[in-house]
Formats: sequence, C-alpha cells, structure tokens
Amino acid sequence: MKEFEGYQYKEKGICAPQGFRANGLNCGLNPVKEKNDLCLLVSDRECDTAAVYTQNKVKGAPILITKKHLFASNGKAQAVIANSKNANTCNHDGEEKAEQMCVLAAKALGIQTEKVLVASTGVIGQVLPIEPIEAAIPELVKGLSYDGNEKAVQAIMTTDTIPKQVAVEFVAEGKTVRIGGMAKGSGMIHPNMATTLNFITTDLAITSDLIQKALQEVVAVTYNCLSIDGDTSTNDMVCVMANGMAENKKITEENQAYQMFKQGLYIVMMNLTRMLAKDGEGATKLLECICSGAPDWNTAITVAKSVIVSPLFKCAMFGEDANWGRILCAVGNAKAEFAIDLVEVKLCSSAGELLVCQDGSGVAFSEEFAQTVLKEDEIQILIDLKQGEAAATAWGCDLTYDYVKINGDYRS
Amino acid sequence: MKEFEGYQYKEKGICAPQGFRANGLNCGLNPVKEKNDLCLLVSDRECDTAAVYTQNKVKGAPILITKKHLFASNGKAQAVIANSKNANTCNHDGEEKAEQMCVLAAKALGIQTEKVLVASTGVIGQVLPIEPIEAAIPELVKGLSYDGNEKAVQAIMTTDTIPKQVAVEFVAEGKTVRIGGMAKGSGMIHPNMATTLNFITTDLAITSDLIQKALQEVVAVTYNCLSIDGDTSTNDMVCVMANGMAENKKITEENQAYQMFKQGLYIVMMNLTRMLAKDGEGATKLLECICSGAPDWNTAITVAKSVIVSPLFKCAMFGEDANWGRILCAVGNAKAEFAIDLVEVKLCSSAGELLVCQDGSGVAFSEEFAQTVLKEDEIQILIDLKQGEAAATAWGCDLTYDYVKINGDYRS
Repeated sequence: MKEFEGYQYKEKGICAPQGFRANGLNCGLNPVKEKNDLCLLVSDRECDTAAVYTQNKVKGAPILITKKHLFASNGKAQAVIANSKNANTCNHDGEEKAEQMCVLAAKALGIQTEKVLVASTGVIGQVLPIEPIEAAIPELVKGLSYDGNEKAVQAIMTTDTIPKQVAVEFVAEGKTVRIGGMAKGSGMIHPNMATTLNFITTDLAITSDLIQKALQEVVAVTYNCLSIDGDTSTNDMVCVMANGMAENKKITEENQAYQMFKQGLYIVMMNLTRMLAKDGEGATKLLECICSGAPDWNTAITVAKSVIVSPLFKCAMFGEDANWGRILCAVGNAKAEFAIDLVEVKLCSSAGELLVCQDGSGVAFSEEFAQTVLKEDEIQILIDLKQGEAAATAWGCDLTYDYVKINGDYRS
Repeated sequence: MKEFEGYQYKEKGICAPQGFRANGLNCGLNPVKEKNDLCLLVSDRECDTAAVYTQNKVKGAPILITKKHLFASNGKAQAVIANSKNANTCNHDGEEKAEQMCVLAAKALGIQTEKVLVASTGVIGQVLPIEPIEAAIPELVKGLSYDGNEKAVQAIMTTDTIPKQVAVEFVAEGKTVRIGGMAKGSGMIHPNMATTLNFITTDLAITSDLIQKALQEVVAVTYNCLSIDGDTSTNDMVCVMANGMAENKKITEENQAYQMFKQGLYIVMMNLTRMLAKDGEGATKLLECICSGAPDWNTAITVAKSVIVSPLFKCAMFGEDANWGRILCAVGNAKAEFAIDLVEVKLCSSAGELLVCQDGSGVAFSEEFAQTVLKEDEIQILIDLKQGEAAATAWGCDLTYDYVKINGDYRS
C-alpha cells in the first residue's frame, strides 16, 4: 500500500478506532453455515454520522430506512446492522423488514431505533425472512468485541474472495486518532454513486456536516472512479461514524485538523477502492488508468473511466495483449472535448513501462517486452492528453471467463 | 423475419436492386486464403448517396476520405471499396492509403476518384499494406457480377459467424423498386452511432438530401438502438446508394413514395440490426428489449438501452436465469425521469410469456416455466413503465465465455 507522510497503516479495520465493537455470524440466510451473513457494529458513544447512497432510481429498502433514521436523529447514530445474501429490495414489505432489523438491534442494545442504521446486499426481489435475524440477535450482541472486525467483514461478503479492511492513524489537534473501514462488493459496481457497502469508523470528534462534506469530496475521487461492470447497484452505501473518543477539540470548521481527517479518509477509501477493483468478479488483474495532461479534472476522469469500462479493453488485458488500439478507441468515446491527435499512451507494471502510442498514432514496440509488462497482476494505463495540467485516476479490472461464470449462475 | 404489408423480402442483398455489381476475394491481408478480405461494389449508373459515420473522436482514415469524397462530389458516388483485417486507423499514413484504395478502384473502373467510397475494418493501429490491394484490383474488377453479393459480404466479415444480407421489394410511383443491404460487425458495437460497416443499395430515384434525412431517422431507431458491448468503433459507417434504375419519377419531396422508401429502409436496417445482435461476439441469444408505457420515446429508448447494455443482465440471460432484479436494477440506472414503482416486467420467447415484476415488486412465478421460456435463442424483455404511450426497442445479446475468449485473444 502506498505510504503517505504523517499517516501509519494499522490493523483491525473498523475496530482500529477506540470504542467500536463488532461481531458477525451465520443466522441462516446463507445455507453455508461457515459463511457469516449478519453483522453488527456498535460504538460505545453516539457518533456524528454522514452517509452517501446509490444513485439508482431503484433504492433498496435499507437505504430508505437508513436515510430516514439519520434525518430523524439529526446525523447521530450508534450502530449498524447489515446482512448479505438478500438485498431486501423490490419487496412489498421491504421497508417494514428493514425497520424491524433496526428495532431488534436497538432493543437488544438499549438504544433508540433511529440511532441504528441498516444495510443489505444480495439477490434483489426475494422476501427477507426476519425470523432468523431475530433469533440471532442475542448471540450477535453477546459476541460484540473490540476486535470483532474480522467476523463482521466476513458477514458482508457476497462474491468477494477476500475481505477488505483498512485503517490509518494520524495526529489531529494534538491527539492520536484513527480511521478504519471495511467494504464489500465485487459485482454491480460502477462510477457515479457511493459504491457497494462501506462502513467507516473514527474516534475523531467532528461534526456530521463536516463529515458529509469530506465524504462527498473523497467519494468523488475514490469509489466513484471505480467500475467493475458498469452496473450501479440498488443498495450501495458509504457511512462514516465519528465517536469523538480520541478526545480532540471537536472539529467544527475546515481547519488543519479537518484537512488531516479528509486526507486520512482519502487514504482509507482509496485503498478500499483498489481492493474492490482487484477483487472484481472474476478479475485476475487490477487496472489503474491515470489520465494526465487534461484541460480539467472532469475531462481527465471522463477519459480514464471510458477506458476502464470498455469490455474490449478489459478482455485484452485478461489476454495480456497490448492491443492499444482499443485504449485509443475508448479514449475517443469519452464524452468530453479534447484533441485526440496529441494523445500518448503507456502501459506500466512492476516489470516496466511501455510506450505504445504517441501523437495519437502507434509506435513500434517489442511484443515480448509488452507481454512481460502485462503478465503482472497490477497494470497501470497512463494516458497523457498533452493539453493541460489536470489528472485523474480510475480503477477497474479485467473481464474474464469467471465473470461470466459467476453471473451466469448467481441466484442458484 | 417479420412481415410488413406492401413489402416482399428478396434474395441477393446489395445486388437485389437493378444495376449493382459486386465482388470479393482474398488479397492476402488475411493469411487464411479461404477468407475474403477485399470487396468492391459498383453501380452501373452514378448514385445519389448519403452516409452516416461513427461518433467516436478517433475516426478511421477511410471515414475521413469517404466524407471528403461525398462532399467533393456533392453526394454522388458509383463504387465502394472495402477491406477487413486492418482498420487503417491511428496510422500516420492512413489517409494516404485510404485515398490510394479509391484511386486504384477509380482507375480500374474508369470513374472519378471522388465517386469511390472506402471502408476498412479490423485491428486498429497497424499500417495497411497497399501492395496486396493494388495487385488484386484487376481480378476484383474482372469478377464483378450482378450476383456477387455473397463474395462481397464474405469480405467484410471479421469475427462475424454468419453473413448479414437483406433485400425488400415494393412499389413506389408505380414502379417496382428494391432496397438491398449488407452489414458486418459483431464486436465494438454500441448505441449512438452509425454502427459497423453497412452498405445499402437501391434502384429508386431519390435525391441524396432525402436519402440523408431518411437514413438519419431510420438509424436512430435501428442501429443506434443496438449494443453488443458498449464500445463505439472508430470505423462505423452506413452508406445508402440510389442509382435510379427503377425509372420512377425522382423523389424530391416527402411524399407517399418517400414514406414507402423510408419504411423499406427501416425494414432492411431493422433486420440487419437484429442479425448483428444475434451474431454478437460469442452470443448464444438475441435479446430484444421493448420498453412501452413511457412518457416519451427518449425515456423509452433510454430504459431499453440501459437493460440491453447491463453485463449482469446479459450474463443472467446466458445462464438462462430469470434474475429479473438485474433488469429492474438496470431500469433504475437509466438516465431518465420516471416513476419506478409502476413498472411491469415480462420475459417472452416463442415458448411463452412470463410475468416477473408488477408495480416495481416481484411476483411469484414458476422457475420451471421460466427456464422453458429462457431456453430459446430469441428472448424479448417487455418493460411497461405504465406512465405514457411511447415505446422503443433496443437489441443486444447475452455475454458469454466466448465473448471473453474472442476478445482476450484478438490480435494474434
């Protein structure tokens, strides 16, 4: 993971900040008993909280209930309950069931219902049975622990092959503070939303308005620059909970400490984004497309995303084929205004850097060296438009047989 | 093929209208000697001609030359030369080579260079060798015939598995006229352009301005409603050539005969579009998404296209899985304004019709019957928004292992 001055990576994900307990277990939604399907995250103190949600017109019932609760509580929350295997979306009784999940958790924890947030992921349009969740609540609460992050992150995984957790430590207002996060998701992921389920905790003291501001800015350059398959899910959500237990002077304006927090949030979310891309459904390679030399950031990110979503380019990367014409084709398809005949394209990995296109036309290169570069499992595509100073990064993965396999046979 | 009153389907594709000769052969661009890679289409008389081109910022050199020639000749053309295996795009000498192809054909045919149009398809960014084309021209011209459409259509195929040709006959201004067409393309195909290489001939007499008008209107509801993989090619082109040999009173205004022509053009292009979708790279199924009950056509087509491009939905169709939640997710992602909670979704095929979603929520259905419906190779997805009278159709195909295979290993 890339190092940033003033920040140290830590273990324990969402449980890295002080005062956050978590747990996860199998309640029976998933017939595979070894696979957790329900988790609970609880803070010792009430948290200033902010969230962003999917932009799909179809919104999962848990999204609607979480929004309602955060509105009612004026941005305060203390717990999150989440399940996998069933998205509780497009069901007649979806909101009722999502609310019930919060009621059950609130009662067991002795807190107000509107201080509980809820999230679900899984198949759309199947009625969520509440009984197994209800039956599991006592054990779920009993098992809460300050290092329960592993069990919790297992519970939100669906087609994920690895759990995704990050935590960083830094100093703000003279206090050591931490930000931790966990994320799930490897399919139905696309720019322009708050992608996948993402829970972020911190022991910093900061207002929910400032969390919201930082979150929206960081989402724009991290999760929203990620695409696995162009599909925006109905249940995507990122929430950030700050319990203030680091005892710093509460951040109420955009001062130096706010900047430190925002950068910490960026580090956590950028790393989770890379993990999501690398573990995209069926993926064998992380693709990182950096567009520089653009007249403005919007142009840069539009070009970078256009490349990262191209199925033909993604297949070529799976085949380790330096078919750069497909990159230029995708650049040309970007809905932005720029000159195409200045463009330079390089393919990079830990094995080296390969120039494939200059001034919009191909240059001779060694196919052997190209294969050496593309054999690696993290590939950077550097696109220099040569007409400005702005740059942006988009993340994605290759398109493989396994993506088709996983998604040709998902429900069963 | 669907029947239309007043129109009969005919054999011979581009050679169905009077006075069009064609030929195709292998000149050596394709090392497989049995595979044609170069074709020529010639009209006995000069044609009123119109064309539409790719909207990709990267435009193949042949596109630039064809545009230039049609501009210089004021919409008159008499021949088309086209090759596969090499797109002649993103090369320093691309325009020079494309012009040379026209010069060579014009000389051999004894016509002006600007009356020759040119098209190329294949790998981007590899220099096009002109020598094999030059050497093949005498044989190509010598072999021109009034039923050379089969040889010609073979020459424009790339990853296509079947040739795509259609012709219809109808009466306009008291004369029997014909429209014929051929198309290629099964990858790098996406809405919002003139997709793939498409050549359409007619013996009708009509001005090039009116051809252009009809072409643009028909492209909007046929090729531009097609998506195989979301990638817009650099070399797409549709051209329509009218040689007037049916001897009808020349159509110079939007009268009844113009409407007959436009409808004929629609029948030819709609059928070619369906053929392109069904033969999409790796496809096992034609998917036809019909969105009705929309407030306006733009909303309808936006919804239909959003479904047809969704990789998750496309994989589910490959897996013959009635995972309608993915359809609703794609509907919700459509960039249009409408209420989601009225939506009804049905899956249809020759085996029957299955209701899966009503009022935006799932309904119980027989999985066994669903499998019977989805086993067929042409599937219709009927989406009724229940909030208006407008309807639109988009065409696509399933996403399969073979798509990945074909595109993971294309250049070699």
